[in-house]
Amino acid sequence: LNTDLEAQYRLYIERLNSHVVDDLSDFVHDALTYNGQAMTRRDYQDMLAGDIAAIPDLRFEIDRLVVQHDHVACRINFSCTPEGEFMGLAPNGKSISFSEHVFYRFRDGRICEVLSLIDQTAIRAQLAS
Amino acid sequence: LNTDLEAQYRLYIERLNSHVVDDLSDFVHDALTYNGQAMTRRDYQDMLAGDIAAIPDLRFEIDRLVVQHDHVACRINFSCTPEGEFMGLAPNGKSISFSEHVFYRFRDGRICEVLSLIDQTAIRAQLAS
Repeated sequence: LNTDLEAQYRLYIERLNSHVVDDLSDFVHDALTYNGQAMTRRDYQDMLAGDIAAIPDLRFEIDRLVVQHDHVACRINFSCTPEGEFMGLAPNGKSISFSEHVFYRFRDGRICEVLSLIDQTAIRAQLAS
Repeated sequence: LNTDLEAQYRLYIERLNSHVVDDLSDFVHDALTYNGQAMTRRDYQDMLAGDIAAIPDLRFEIDRLVVQHDHVACRINFSCTPEGEFMGLAPNGKSISFSEHVFYRFRDGRICEVLSLIDQTAIRAQLAS
C-alpha cells in the first residue's frame, strides 16, 4: 500500500515537473486544505500555475520521501531562476536554491490536505543579494 | 519495525519535553548532521538547552508523524512564551505559535541526521507585533 501511494506521489511530482497543471484531478480532490485554509482544486492549480509563470525553470526534486498509511512527507529541493515576483520578492536575475518540507494527507489516493513550509529565509537572503 | 521507530521517536519527544537534555545518548549518535552541518551530540544538546533557556515553557507537540524505514518526518507545533532571544529576535512578552517540519534519519535506532525548517515568518510576525 505504501508502495502504491509512493508511486502515486512520484507521478504527481512528475506531473508538476511537466508544468501541465490545469487538471490535477488524478491527484487532488475537488476540495482540499492548504496550510489550514480551504481551497478548491482549481485554486490549488492556479497557485501552482502562478509559481510556474514566475519561475519558468521550476523543478521539484524529491530529496527525502517518507510514506506511511495515508500520509506523505517530502523534502523538496529547488534550484531555479525566478523571472517574476515570487513570495512577494522581486527577481534579481540570479538562480536560487531552497527547500520545501511538506506533509500531505491522501484520501482514496488523492490529496485532501497540504501542510507546507518553505525556507523563506533562504529565499529572502538570495533574492535580496 | 515502523512501530518500534515511532515508539522510539515518541520517547525522544517526551525526553525533550522533560527539559532534561544533557544526555540524549539513547536517542542521538555521537556525531550527526543538522541541516547539512556536522555537529556532535553535545552541540545538539547545547542547542536544545539554549532553546529551553530562552523559552521556559517550550513544549513539542506532535501534529503529524510519518515513519518509514529509517526515516521519521514530523510536524511539530509550538505554543510558547519566549523570555530570552529566540532565532535572533527579542521576546515581547507575548505567547507565540508556530510549526517545525523536520526530517530525521535514524541508524540503529538513533538520530544521525536532522533536516529542519521552522516557520520563521510566523515567529517574526508574532515577535515583531
